Amino acid sequence: MLIRIDRESVIPVYEQIKEHIRGLIEAGQLKPGARLPSSRNLADTLGVNRTTVCTAYEELEADGYLASHVGQGTYVTAPDQLVGKTSERRVAQNFTPKFSRRSDFLSTFAQRSETLTGSSRADRILFSGLTPEEDLFPVETFRTVLNSVMRERGRELLQYGNPQGYLPLREYISSRLVRYSISAPAEQIAIVTGSQQGIDLIMRTLTDPHDRVIIESPSYGELLPVLAQYEVDVIPIPVGSRGMDLDILEQKLNEQPARLIYSMPNFHNPTGATMELADRKRLVDIVAQHKIPLVEDDYEKDLRFEGTPIVPVKALDTTGTIIYMGTFSKGLFPGVRVAWVAASREIIDRIVLAKRYSDFHTNLLMQAAITEFCVQGHYDAHLRRLHKIYQLRRRRLLDALKREFPDSVSWTKPDGGYALWVTMPPQVDAEDLLLLAKEHGIFFTPGRKFYMEKDCGKSSFRLCYSRTDAEQIDEGIAILGSLIKKLLKQTIS
Amino acid sequence: MLIRIDRESVIPVYEQIKEHIRGLIEAGQLKPGARLPSSRNLADTLGVNRTTVCTAYEELEADGYLASHVGQGTYVTAPDQLVGKTSERRVAQNFTPKFSRRSDFLSTFAQRSETLTGSSRADRILFSGLTPEEDLFPVETFRTVLNSVMRERGRELLQYGNPQGYLPLREYISSRLVRYSISAPAEQIAIVTGSQQGIDLIMRTLTDPHDRVIIESPSYGELLPVLAQYEVDVIPIPVGSRGMDLDILEQKLNEQPARLIYSMPNFHNPTGATMELADRKRLVDIVAQHKIPLVEDDYEKDLRFEGTPIVPVKALDTTGTIIYMGTFSKGLFPGVRVAWVAASREIIDRIVLAKRYSDFHTNLLMQAAITEFCVQGHYDAHLRRLHKIYQLRRRRLLDALKREFPDSVSWTKPDGGYALWVTMPPQVDAEDLLLLAKEHGIFFTPGRKFYMEKDCGKSSFRLCYSRTDAEQIDEGIAILGSLIKKLLKQTIS
Repeated sequence: MLIRIDRESVIPVYEQIKEHIRGLIEAGQLKPGARLPSSRNLADTLGVNRTTVCTAYEELEADGYLASHVGQGTYVTAPDQLVGKTSERRVAQNFTPKFSRRSDFLSTFAQRSETLTGSSRADRILFSGLTPEEDLFPVETFRTVLNSVMRERGRELLQYGNPQGYLPLREYISSRLVRYSISAPAEQIAIVTGSQQGIDLIMRTLTDPHDRVIIESPSYGELLPVLAQYEVDVIPIPVGSRGMDLDILEQKLNEQPARLIYSMPNFHNPTGATMELADRKRLVDIVAQHKIPLVEDDYEKDLRFEGTPIVPVKALDTTGTIIYMGTFSKGLFPGVRVAWVAASREIIDRIVLAKRYSDFHTNLLMQAAITEFCVQGHYDAHLRRLHKIYQLRRRRLLDALKREFPDSVSWTKPDGGYALWVTMPPQVDAEDLLLLAKEHGIFFTPGRKFYMEKDCGKSSFRLCYSRTDAEQIDEGIAILGSLIKKLLKQTIS
Repeated sequence: MLIRIDRESVIPVYEQIKEHIRGLIEAGQLKPGARLPSSRNLADTLGVNRTTVCTAYEELEADGYLASHVGQGTYVTAPDQLVGKTSERRVAQNFTPKFSRRSDFLSTFAQRSETLTGSSRADRILFSGLTPEEDLFPVETFRTVLNSVMRERGRELLQYGNPQGYLPLREYISSRLVRYSISAPAEQIAIVTGSQQGIDLIMRTLTDPHDRVIIESPSYGELLPVLAQYEVDVIPIPVGSRGMDLDILEQKLNEQPARLIYSMPNFHNPTGATMELADRKRLVDIVAQHKIPLVEDDYEKDLRFEGTPIVPVKALDTTGTIIYMGTFSKGLFPGVRVAWVAASREIIDRIVLAKRYSDFHTNLLMQAAITEFCVQGHYDAHLRRLHKIYQLRRRRLLDALKREFPDSVSWTKPDGGYALWVTMPPQVDAEDLLLLAKEHGIFFTPGRKFYMEKDCGKSSFRLCYSRTDAEQIDEGIAILGSLIKKLLKQTIS
């Protein structure tokens, strides 16, 4: 940018610069969006002080000709185009749209749910959130794999991809499912952006408003707002120590047909209950007989720390009624947002169609990096490490509970997963306990969050130990134990 | 694994190994999912030939005790758990679920659309697909940035993130929008998994079934199945060389209210039409007066190769009715699936809520890498490079069209974006032309794909030049020109 500076003029140099640039903008020679040289560069070119250029730029910015932002430089705006609008721009944005019914349902439900989640930075001991421990993430190995995948196939992986998912990842998952006695070829698998998307796409594909959808009670807290949003009638089936009560399930199905069943037979969230083999066989027979698709959300199948694995319901499926879901969020990283759905070809095709028009496809680069990470054996190695750590933490937690909690309190003892379920005497409210616990920097999730029904789960809570080390477990459980005792005393007196 | 081998026995060694392992599995000492040593390792340990171990493993696999997969090793299955089921497992999966109305709508519409898209590997000259050229991707720079982001903040970026999006990215987008005279603080911006998700979330949040939704005709082809899925009544407004016909828009709105308007005022897809400033001001006034949210999908705003930029409609918005969408898919990479929505706080909050229960959040690592890439100035540098290349390609294409296409054919001349729109005489069908063109390995998108109305766009087609170099442009347009002339002759005779 060449500006003739007249040093003899009565017009200050900064103003000469300013007027010159303003002229260029008004003449259309400097177009909206054009970037100006940095003040340092322009000052050097013109042989003037940098402050002089800065003053010119600042005045042009104040007049609306330029806009600047730290680190991004200075740009020409379009002041002439905004004439007659600029003065109004500070007016409050007072338009309120009419939101959809589903958005209103979601909002109402989420507001209720919101009060029961979320911890603050002050909390030191987090028994909340089914979140893997980030200190245990195999970050360096994943970085190396990601970097090599980028180096070798970056161009292809940054381009649009297949809505069904990256084929090598689907092939890997298919081969991995063999270990769980599940036979699902790659064409019966769809990659989704986390299990949350899997649930959304299944609801979208298999339910209409006012359909009956059967869930376990309690169930996955983040499922409930989705059900509210899809306006389905929820039929809750109680969960005992052996999982969903199948007698009640049969009774409900005989009364009236349902459209979909959602179940977590393995390390059920929030109770940790695991369904026995005989019950799994019965469940498969029930859904086959009633011809109802059943979603088996096996989100923690890779996290069994004790006991004998039981085959997934999907492995027992002979009619194609089971929709099986798995994820990398609990055993690996949640931030990558990679999970999968395995189902009959007919169902998968429809899920992929819904996926295609939801977000086109899941991030390709992440899919490829996870594939490489798994194929090289790093996922299995990471799981072995997690198993060792959580075997110890689990025992520590069970010991602490036995030592610190009063006899009137009971809890589940799942062989895996990151959580267990505590039930206190009915006169103790878990939300009261949480209020006291937070004063000690302890957070957990009150039971109410996991129920669709009002007034359920008030005396229960979920205790996650994924992000607590041995000392935090001992300290946290000791404090919780004494607080429960305190609350029990209050209710007696 | 220590197995006592009796070399004197009449029982072959492989069978001794097999029986020992079978015993361990049946006694529950080797549990389902347990990994066996590799055949080489076990052979070394036992001092036997590797083939012997392999034979034992193979027979155990045939009997259903083990499962193996290349590269993943050999695992114990759960044959006892599958008793009574294994024989049925080969039975055809004959269950057909009832799909939702929205899935049926989507499926019907997508099938129609599908026949009009997709090219084969044999196609050499791709005038189809609004897809950036992967040979121009700044892969190496992005890899370096991604690697350093992983190194510095990998742990945090692989953990769960904020449903609204990574704050530094929202701050960057906010500061970048200043160049386009748009004032949108980070809290009014939501990161979405591609514009496709933006559209889905907006439809979800702001429309109910049977609502009237106004779109341009023609419009973005991938929008149409979404509208079908959400069961809205689509009101198409014709697009001319200056964009949406505002007289017809006003007329339609005066007749009956509408719930939402979707528009691409800049390099409209598929026509390339750009709305003039005066019309943008009028559009803002119309929607403010009728209090209707308008989605401004500005997907190619960073790709202006000629002329003066015109401020987005959003920059003229004083009432908060405009929902602005932008994406990194066209100017950078589509595979990362990162786009954004900017709207009033009230609307953004609801979109984020829908997002949270759709896929929880967009891949955090990709968001962070894009932020760093942009903040370091690489995105602007990449755009400058693209501008130079596409300025030349655009001119080459316009020259070729003028030289090769008959006078009875017309086309638009957009100042940016990757596509233009060709209109042939009504007696020539673009799908007939495509059939002939494919024989020469040339692909483009017939006009019908962009219309909700039947029998519209038959003589038009979209010509994308994002992935064609100068020679392919010359060759492709020459062939298309001669084919059009041939079809014209046929219709006359």
